[in-house]
Amino acid sequence: MAKKITIDNLAVLEQIIDTASNNFDLKEILAKIVEIIGKITKADSCFIYLISNDQVILKASLKSHHGNLSKIKMKLGEGITGWVAENKKTVVIKSKAYQDKRFKLFTNLPEDKFEGFLSVPIIFRNRVIGVINVQHQKTRSYSKTEISFLETIGKQIGGILEVSRLITETDVLHEALATQKIINQAKAILMKSAQLDEDAAHRLLLKKSMDKRKSLKEVAEAIILAQDLTK
Amino acid sequence: MAKKITIDNLAVLEQIIDTASNNFDLKEILAKIVEIIGKITKADSCFIYLISNDQVILKASLKSHHGNLSKIKMKLGEGITGWVAENKKTVVIKSKAYQDKRFKLFTNLPEDKFEGFLSVPIIFRNRVIGVINVQHQKTRSYSKTEISFLETIGKQIGGILEVSRLITETDVLHEALATQKIINQAKAILMKSAQLDEDAAHRLLLKKSMDKRKSLKEVAEAIILAQDLTK
Repeated sequence: MAKKITIDNLAVLEQIIDTASNNFDLKEILAKIVEIIGKITKADSCFIYLISNDQVILKASLKSHHGNLSKIKMKLGEGITGWVAENKKTVVIKSKAYQDKRFKLFTNLPEDKFEGFLSVPIIFRNRVIGVINVQHQKTRSYSKTEISFLETIGKQIGGILEVSRLITETDVLHEALATQKIINQAKAILMKSAQLDEDAAHRLLLKKSMDKRKSLKEVAEAIILAQDLTK
Repeated sequence: MAKKITIDNLAVLEQIIDTASNNFDLKEILAKIVEIIGKITKADSCFIYLISNDQVILKASLKSHHGNLSKIKMKLGEGITGWVAENKKTVVIKSKAYQDKRFKLFTNLPEDKFEGFLSVPIIFRNRVIGVINVQHQKTRSYSKTEISFLETIGKQIGGILEVSRLITETDVLHEALATQKIINQAKAILMKSAQLDEDAAHRLLLKKSMDKRKSLKEVAEAIILAQDLTK
């Protein structure tokens, strides 16, 4: 039996690695991973939460009927999930998770309704960046192997989430750099043509942006285009 | 026996995941992974190469006596390693790898001296970003399980390398954004104080930078400081 579990676990890790390697969409990757975890733990419910600005936000759920996932969120330290996120420690509750005195209870939060509750941190480079919850409607013992394997999955998901966050961050930074160049070009045009200093040119750009309800970048592009046309 | 291998493989993946999760230094992570691969394949030699600008560059080696790893590099398509990098396909050679006619031979390249040769692509999101080589001095059969497991490790390393590359890229972009702000501030000061247009201010900054053998950022910082002092 122990060997059986171990061999399945290898297949599970290989599946997760494959999923992350072949997929471009984080939502799809997390949905697939939640499904895999749900299957191996025979969970009634499985959630993946991501920490963002001191909030723990639901990102993937076994049940597809959760419409807007991101609406389900809690503060660091709140609830079982928030406790795991804050303390970087796994929580294992065999039964009556909803009565556990250490944790504040929520209404309408999915974690209130279960007996068995296994909650492990998602870790990247020693930082908690999310939480995986596995929940059972009936009393459920979690084995040491099971807990430690879910912690390994937590580390694996940590790397996956970090790649995804970094891809978004580099996109934003590339865009910011390009925007800054355009805005500076427009400012230089205003400084020269209207004999303004930098502050005044900046304020003029801001004002145009507000008046026209356009982004700073769009206003700046218009100024550069106008300048090109009059050359 | 098959079960034994499978269980070891799970432990191996867990070790690699742990290594990547707990370590901050890519060199250390790759050194550890090369060591793990060397151990499970009983390799005489194991290398991890990274693709950068159409070159395949050695990044980690089982033997610590390779002084400057990055000196060992080849072009995409050159050698067995370059072929794997270009074709995104695994190469398995049981014996006389050095005589394989498909591949151009190199002098002083570590891949010339082995009989058994297993070379698998490191993949992230369907792109090859590196190559893992496992080499044996004696004739060596590689099993299907072994090959497919090394391909899984290749995908796992793909994620690790990508995180690392993205962390470097975001650092560079943050720095570029900060530098651009400082340079623009300095340009604005020059435009106002010396009545220059933007091009002329830019040329003046470049000239000062070359004359003083300082970076553009350092020159810009000096101009801003001087301005602050005369306020």
